Amino acid sequence: MLGNARSAGLTQLLLLVCFTLSTPCSVLAQTGGALPIMPLPGHVALHEGEFLIDGNFGIALKGYKEPRLERARQRFLDILSAETGMPLWREAMVNQPHFIIQTVGPSAAVQQLGEDESYRLEISGTDVQLKAPNPLGVIRGLQTFLQLVRITPKAFSVPAVIVDDKPRFPWRGLLIDSGHRFVPIPVLKRNLDGMEAVKLNVFHWRFADNQGFHIESKKFPLLHIKGSGGFYYSQDEVRELIAYARDRGIRVVPEFDMPCHTTSWFLGYPDLASGKVPSSSSAIDPTRESTYRFLATFLGEMAALFPDSHFHAGGDECDAKEWETNPRIQEFMRIHAIKDAAALQALFTARVQKILASQRKIMVGWDEILQPDTPKNVVIQSWRGQDSLVESARRGYRSVLSAGYYIDLNQSAAEHYLVDPLGDKAATLTPDQLARVLGGEATMWTDIVSEENMDNRIWPRTAAIAERLWSAPEARDVDWMYQRLAIVSQKLGYYGLRHRLITDEMLERMSGEPNPVPLKVLAAVVQPPRNYERQDLRSFSDFTPLNRMDDAVPPESDTAREFNAIAKRIVSGTASPEDWQQARKWLVLWRDNDAQLQPLLARSFLIEDLAPVSRNLSRVAEIGLQALDDLHENHLVGAEARRRNIEFLKSCEKPQAVLLLMVAPSVELLVQAAKTQ
Amino acid sequence: MLGNARSAGLTQLLLLVCFTLSTPCSVLAQTGGALPIMPLPGHVALHEGEFLIDGNFGIALKGYKEPRLERARQRFLDILSAETGMPLWREAMVNQPHFIIQTVGPSAAVQQLGEDESYRLEISGTDVQLKAPNPLGVIRGLQTFLQLVRITPKAFSVPAVIVDDKPRFPWRGLLIDSGHRFVPIPVLKRNLDGMEAVKLNVFHWRFADNQGFHIESKKFPLLHIKGSGGFYYSQDEVRELIAYARDRGIRVVPEFDMPCHTTSWFLGYPDLASGKVPSSSSAIDPTRESTYRFLATFLGEMAALFPDSHFHAGGDECDAKEWETNPRIQEFMRIHAIKDAAALQALFTARVQKILASQRKIMVGWDEILQPDTPKNVVIQSWRGQDSLVESARRGYRSVLSAGYYIDLNQSAAEHYLVDPLGDKAATLTPDQLARVLGGEATMWTDIVSEENMDNRIWPRTAAIAERLWSAPEARDVDWMYQRLAIVSQKLGYYGLRHRLITDEMLERMSGEPNPVPLKVLAAVVQPPRNYERQDLRSFSDFTPLNRMDDAVPPESDTAREFNAIAKRIVSGTASPEDWQQARKWLVLWRDNDAQLQPLLARSFLIEDLAPVSRNLSRVAEIGLQALDDLHENHLVGAEARRRNIEFLKSCEKPQAVLLLMVAPSVELLVQAAKTQ
Repeated sequence: MLGNARSAGLTQLLLLVCFTLSTPCSVLAQTGGALPIMPLPGHVALHEGEFLIDGNFGIALKGYKEPRLERARQRFLDILSAETGMPLWREAMVNQPHFIIQTVGPSAAVQQLGEDESYRLEISGTDVQLKAPNPLGVIRGLQTFLQLVRITPKAFSVPAVIVDDKPRFPWRGLLIDSGHRFVPIPVLKRNLDGMEAVKLNVFHWRFADNQGFHIESKKFPLLHIKGSGGFYYSQDEVRELIAYARDRGIRVVPEFDMPCHTTSWFLGYPDLASGKVPSSSSAIDPTRESTYRFLATFLGEMAALFPDSHFHAGGDECDAKEWETNPRIQEFMRIHAIKDAAALQALFTARVQKILASQRKIMVGWDEILQPDTPKNVVIQSWRGQDSLVESARRGYRSVLSAGYYIDLNQSAAEHYLVDPLGDKAATLTPDQLARVLGGEATMWTDIVSEENMDNRIWPRTAAIAERLWSAPEARDVDWMYQRLAIVSQKLGYYGLRHRLITDEMLERMSGEPNPVPLKVLAAVVQPPRNYERQDLRSFSDFTPLNRMDDAVPPESDTAREFNAIAKRIVSGTASPEDWQQARKWLVLWRDNDAQLQPLLARSFLIEDLAPVSRNLSRVAEIGLQALDDLHENHLVGAEARRRNIEFLKSCEKPQAVLLLMVAPSVELLVQAAKTQ
Repeated sequence: MLGNARSAGLTQLLLLVCFTLSTPCSVLAQTGGALPIMPLPGHVALHEGEFLIDGNFGIALKGYKEPRLERARQRFLDILSAETGMPLWREAMVNQPHFIIQTVGPSAAVQQLGEDESYRLEISGTDVQLKAPNPLGVIRGLQTFLQLVRITPKAFSVPAVIVDDKPRFPWRGLLIDSGHRFVPIPVLKRNLDGMEAVKLNVFHWRFADNQGFHIESKKFPLLHIKGSGGFYYSQDEVRELIAYARDRGIRVVPEFDMPCHTTSWFLGYPDLASGKVPSSSSAIDPTRESTYRFLATFLGEMAALFPDSHFHAGGDECDAKEWETNPRIQEFMRIHAIKDAAALQALFTARVQKILASQRKIMVGWDEILQPDTPKNVVIQSWRGQDSLVESARRGYRSVLSAGYYIDLNQSAAEHYLVDPLGDKAATLTPDQLARVLGGEATMWTDIVSEENMDNRIWPRTAAIAERLWSAPEARDVDWMYQRLAIVSQKLGYYGLRHRLITDEMLERMSGEPNPVPLKVLAAVVQPPRNYERQDLRSFSDFTPLNRMDDAVPPESDTAREFNAIAKRIVSGTASPEDWQQARKWLVLWRDNDAQLQPLLARSFLIEDLAPVSRNLSRVAEIGLQALDDLHENHLVGAEARRRNIEFLKSCEKPQAVLLLMVAPSVELLVQAAKTQ
């Protein structure tokens, strides 16, 4: 898939990694060993030869043993069977296995922040050795092996290679928000499988928001009975999921967001509320002692359910209005000389932190909880920008970065990839302060994502974030990242993730056609608007069906990105004949697509609003074809025609039908490049 | 999807159905109401208007109630949510539901052969009424509603219609063979969902064969411990699956094939065998009393586990050799004047039938068990041809047809569709004899099918068989069947069936490419050889990975069928300009595909043998394009050139790389049609 060509950027990168780790990389440099591992390992040395995967494939566990290792081995065999189509269930009968897993000892009974995840994978033409200090490293190394599997003219095989690897950051997370929307357990499980594949190690599981309270409480059952609409996780299911995550080397950090985003709590327990229930209150009343008695019991119950040392108590986006308009709360603030809502929240945070500390939990909170008196052992999760991360570290707090990793906002993999927790403003921090930056977390908020399209929002882009958090900071070659991302994306299908299937399935439903080719052509070059613009263009309630084009397409158009790269090469004079040919082929396809698509659009209420988008694509492509000709033939273009074209293209760059036509800017590049008369 | 055009054949058919049922069909005839229901209902009357599916959708259960109906309702809502992308979980909050399910009373505690499955579905612009004598009819009617759901310029809706419906045959089955290969429970479950969708009502579940014994026996645990390689269904899983099937109106008839196909039994209990264990024995010893003591206990255990009134004891393909070469068995036959192996098997069958009768089970067996003294209440399953079905009925036995429904043999949906249990030779039977023909069963033998590609062998073709067994015998319009089959096939995806995903997934694996377009082009026009020819061309062991092209492609090429229809229209002078255009488009695609495909084939050991197939496709297409030109321009063609072309095309019609190039015969049609000089 990568062919033999290797980007110059990659060579640079690999050399850089080698130099950084001060290990000889001669073999790698000589063979051009562009291996599609993601996240990139700390050190790779490619050798001659390959290890064949055939009917004699067998694995032996040596050294320290535990059932989790046996399950990891079985899971590995299941994925390898899926990747190769070879049933490897006879594997246990192989007498002299050539794949040896050597584990030194156990990892902690409850997975700890900062535990050793290192491993060494040695693959020769005849043997595989995977060595790790503990099962976490084994789990990581097995995934590296699976990524190396490829098909050749001879067999399925992995190249002979030595990989020495360990993560850069100890906290590499994915948040899934089961608060805005209940996310069924099978969806969570397959996403934990995906996390394992890219070596993420923290599942941040958020249970409640204004919209719902989705976990069983035995102490306060009205929380889930009244707050969940019947959709909640039983405590048995939660325990099972925690075990499932542990098997995959993933910690589960629960979040109960407080004191705001809590409307659903009040359906069962209205006394907790600052305002009127059920009308409008979304904030817990921080002034009553009964609130803290409730929380001590409730958080005690949850702290016992979740074994992790960390516990997330939210703290974001408090609307001060309820506190400012409640006379009783105002009176409390006056008596205790609390100057504003932020200070009131700080008081609440301190009480919650004490409760959690009494349960031997380290509190995590969103960056709003960083106030003058915030207890020092709290972990700050920065979502509003990297500033708070830097400030936290400077002031002595440990912190986790999420700003820049908001995968619900339809940004590109490249944008996320280039956000470094220690980049930009963190450059001014001292080594001690830098060490307090624990890592980062991608955040799958579910305001306008359903269980149906969630996989396509999380994957493959989260793999790029996983690489940022695992690999050396020098790994910044975007082209090489995208090449590997495509391969990882395909492999994630073997883990049961549905991100590559969703779009076509939704297009079929939208059109009522079994294979709506012209709709697919359009879908391949549009994207939902980025950041929060989508919400401005389409009104969403909690009950809005998410079954339209902006729900169906991936957050990033691969086709548009590839066309853009070609357009840039054409404009810079570095395009190959194949580039010119491909550009023309695409433009013809897009120009002619509209005629086939319009009758289809007219037959379905879910896509009829795409008619102008389709027409625009056709016209954009027509302009593009003319520009290609002009550039190719060195025509001089009339200034007025060019002005009109650019004006039209700019109008096409604005969202329409809650979609961006992603090829318009690239065509504009072509038009701008032609010489005027 | 069907557009507005309705085939003349359909009109004929519908009128025929109407006349047959002697009900006025004027509305239907006037509106041209080609509804994509499969199996076709007994009577359909289409009215003006449509019932919209929107946020106010709600269902009420009236009359007789039981939890199974509640679950059927929930399952219906889940599929409807998947079909529309509208989360219908708030449905329970709708105050005045417009969809009323009216059930008169319960069905039998254990589903019986011949129970009433009728229903009446009345859909108006404002209301839906589903009425049935018992829950079985409700389950059937809900599926009809789901098939009527379509998208329009206004909304998701169903047309206003009255459907009166009941099955033609009481036994409409699918066999899945968990004997040759263990089939995981999730695969079985989704196929039961598919059975429900097309109103099949018997799951024939086969547990053992020479290759393995895949169900837990508590009385004789060495059966599954030694015979299963660790892959077996626990009795709890079996009970759960039976309940799952009952929820869907499906009986579960177990099969334990005896006295042959039983090698796996002998691993734990060698005394049962007629020959040496484990070397070669595949037949139970029918001469020892200990055999029957064993079977009395074992069949007693299994009879208690499976509540159905019928119990399948196999009886097929006994190899007489073991009995003829064992002196002790020969001596027994001499003493008891048993003239041959068939008579010895008849003795065995009679003993087994008695054991089953003592458990109040009706024995079912393959047609070999039909011998002079076979007990009359045995049900005969005909697999070797329709003769045995007719003979059974004539001699007073009830029978089920499987000959003609062997979906493992890669025949077309049309071939299966046109096999009628009461067709051909059954025409000579009296009404009493005809009534003994209970129906039929599609058979998914797993000799060379894996859990991965099984769905694509079963679906969508089994829907055509389901229609044959449910609908009026006059339903024989193949074109109309294929039109509806395509729609049903798409809808089955909402039930979790993977038949439409499998080919692309396997092509990706075979090529190592995320979207191997040229390989897909080739795959769309090839088929595995039919009947048992595939086994002659490729050697299969039980451990052969099923990951090659003949495993990946569906048993029937839709593209080739469509191209063939166009070729026929061109030859007969009835082709439209669009037909000519489409034929040319395809031929150009196929001609040019080889150049792109060859480099891809060279990179992977799983597809390198396709090189000549691809070259042939290219040359076939070239010949086809020339023939198109000749026909279009009324050219006179040289006899010698034509002879050479036909010779080449005929050579391409032979299997290569275990594949048939399905477009070659259609191109031959074109070549044959051109005039010679």
